Amino acid sequence: MITQQIILTSRPRGVPTLDNFAFERVLLPDMHQDEVLLQGLYYSVDPYMRGRMNDRKSYVAPFVVGQPMEGGVVAKVLDSKSDNFKPGDLVTAGLPWRVLNIVPSIWLQKIDITHVPASYYLGILGMPGLTAYIGLLDIGKPKAGETVVVSAAAGAVGIIVGQIAKIQGCRVIGIAGSDEKSRLLKEEFGFDEAVNYKSTSNLKAVISHLCPGGVDVYFDNVGGEISDAVIRNINFDARIPLCGQISIYNSSEYPRGPRLQPMLLSRSALMQGFIVSNYQFRYPEAIQQLNQWLNDGLLKYTETIVHGFDQLPNALLGLFKGDNTGKMIVEA
Amino acid sequence: MITQQIILTSRPRGVPTLDNFAFERVLLPDMHQDEVLLQGLYYSVDPYMRGRMNDRKSYVAPFVVGQPMEGGVVAKVLDSKSDNFKPGDLVTAGLPWRVLNIVPSIWLQKIDITHVPASYYLGILGMPGLTAYIGLLDIGKPKAGETVVVSAAAGAVGIIVGQIAKIQGCRVIGIAGSDEKSRLLKEEFGFDEAVNYKSTSNLKAVISHLCPGGVDVYFDNVGGEISDAVIRNINFDARIPLCGQISIYNSSEYPRGPRLQPMLLSRSALMQGFIVSNYQFRYPEAIQQLNQWLNDGLLKYTETIVHGFDQLPNALLGLFKGDNTGKMIVEA
Repeated sequence: MITQQIILTSRPRGVPTLDNFAFERVLLPDMHQDEVLLQGLYYSVDPYMRGRMNDRKSYVAPFVVGQPMEGGVVAKVLDSKSDNFKPGDLVTAGLPWRVLNIVPSIWLQKIDITHVPASYYLGILGMPGLTAYIGLLDIGKPKAGETVVVSAAAGAVGIIVGQIAKIQGCRVIGIAGSDEKSRLLKEEFGFDEAVNYKSTSNLKAVISHLCPGGVDVYFDNVGGEISDAVIRNINFDARIPLCGQISIYNSSEYPRGPRLQPMLLSRSALMQGFIVSNYQFRYPEAIQQLNQWLNDGLLKYTETIVHGFDQLPNALLGLFKGDNTGKMIVEA
Repeated sequence: MITQQIILTSRPRGVPTLDNFAFERVLLPDMHQDEVLLQGLYYSVDPYMRGRMNDRKSYVAPFVVGQPMEGGVVAKVLDSKSDNFKPGDLVTAGLPWRVLNIVPSIWLQKIDITHVPASYYLGILGMPGLTAYIGLLDIGKPKAGETVVVSAAAGAVGIIVGQIAKIQGCRVIGIAGSDEKSRLLKEEFGFDEAVNYKSTSNLKAVISHLCPGGVDVYFDNVGGEISDAVIRNINFDARIPLCGQISIYNSSEYPRGPRLQPMLLSRSALMQGFIVSNYQFRYPEAIQQLNQWLNDGLLKYTETIVHGFDQLPNALLGLFKGDNTGKMIVEA
């Protein structure tokens, strides 16, 4: 059986381009016992994928040049040699970027779409939702009445972080990349304040103005100068979960900036990098609670859905231009 | 009664000089009920004092221009209007830099010199010892078999941190500012390795060589490029207690350097500023344990003692030139 796949043809220096990808036709192997044939329905594109495009050891192995890209996918079972899956079942898995895949059934998790759309399992009920929940609650440890600032606030993780912080009784300020995103955060997602960093000349002063009592938790999705501005406003005993550094993922140089240790020291602040896959023991509680909040209407969710398997590279590049509000998804 | 005091006459820009200080004769007030007359025996000079010379809010209030410097002192009671103190008692307190002081007795803590010299209460049994104990054990959380790196390793705090890490069963590497200090750390204080950063052209490579399994705990007393070099070698789940930043205390500019968040993120590392005075609930256990280790010969201690009250400004400036091995003390 022949299918289409998207491979990494070269490692980007700086911002990736479409030239780093190629489409190929590939012959799938025969299906063996305990394997299933899958058709991809929804493909996740995520900022962390940029790191995997480098030839540098990080917390996930690099993509291999000449091999398919891979990521989270919601797929439909077309054929099965497993007792646990039958045609028509919907599953999630980490899969190569192919239209069809044959994989061992132990890679798969069944999903239940009775109450939520299938694509939610790549977002609020998947890695981004778990990241928001665990990063904010386990590392940020917000207390009612505290002030929480989140960057990339209209992104897949940030938009959930802000809402969970509101549920905890915090004052929540979001930083986003357009006036429209800022408006949405306040009007649709219940953020107390939101600021468009692109139209702000002195972000440090704006954060200071919006957070007159200082910043207790800064959920950092971006790094760089945006984070510098927030961190200059932290309170004593502040907590800074480091979730992402999208502002500098495309830097070829080792980026420089103001040294933050003197600030962390004088404020007794904590900065903690975390990778959600090291907190799997927390997943059952997190998923149960996120589902509950969704059902109760306490959490709203939004996606930017791009149509067409062939749009996967474009959608990934769009993350670095801020094309998405909420989770960026490609529907095949 | 007339005594001599040392005042701050101007705030330094960059490295302090003797011109920032002046000696004055001052008339002490009459002694009231519950007050005592003290004669200073040992005066502590500490790197954190540099921060108090700036007009910048930090975790301790700035020194006041025109007013005496102040710090930890071991003093003898000369006269007392308190039921709790009698002439001849030895005490510690935070006191103005004066030869004689009249202060309320509630400022004072009696000390016991049966087993240790009085000056130890400004060092291993005082703030530096508590800082080493609490910063390493509560924040660094070293486990047996892990690798611990400490900077300013021959300083008042570092020399204790390294020895406590050895007691915990760790491999310990010290970074110091001379060959003689490095030799002492290895031969006298039991460090596994020590490196003189001043004669090292590529500290990152040297740390990598000395820590083939990577760095699990980095106790940071210095900041700046030394810390950059260590942090490039941290392991997954590394912990970095931020204790001091002596390398940049004298910077007038807001110093810049490589951004560390990407490293902390990819290694799931923790960086935590701490100020020992916020851990007073830990003092009784810490003091009891430090005394025990001293008595058992598991902890060695060393001081650099400068003689003469009038040498206090010089001794303070000497900290920033690395004049001291172990705790810097001025004996009046």
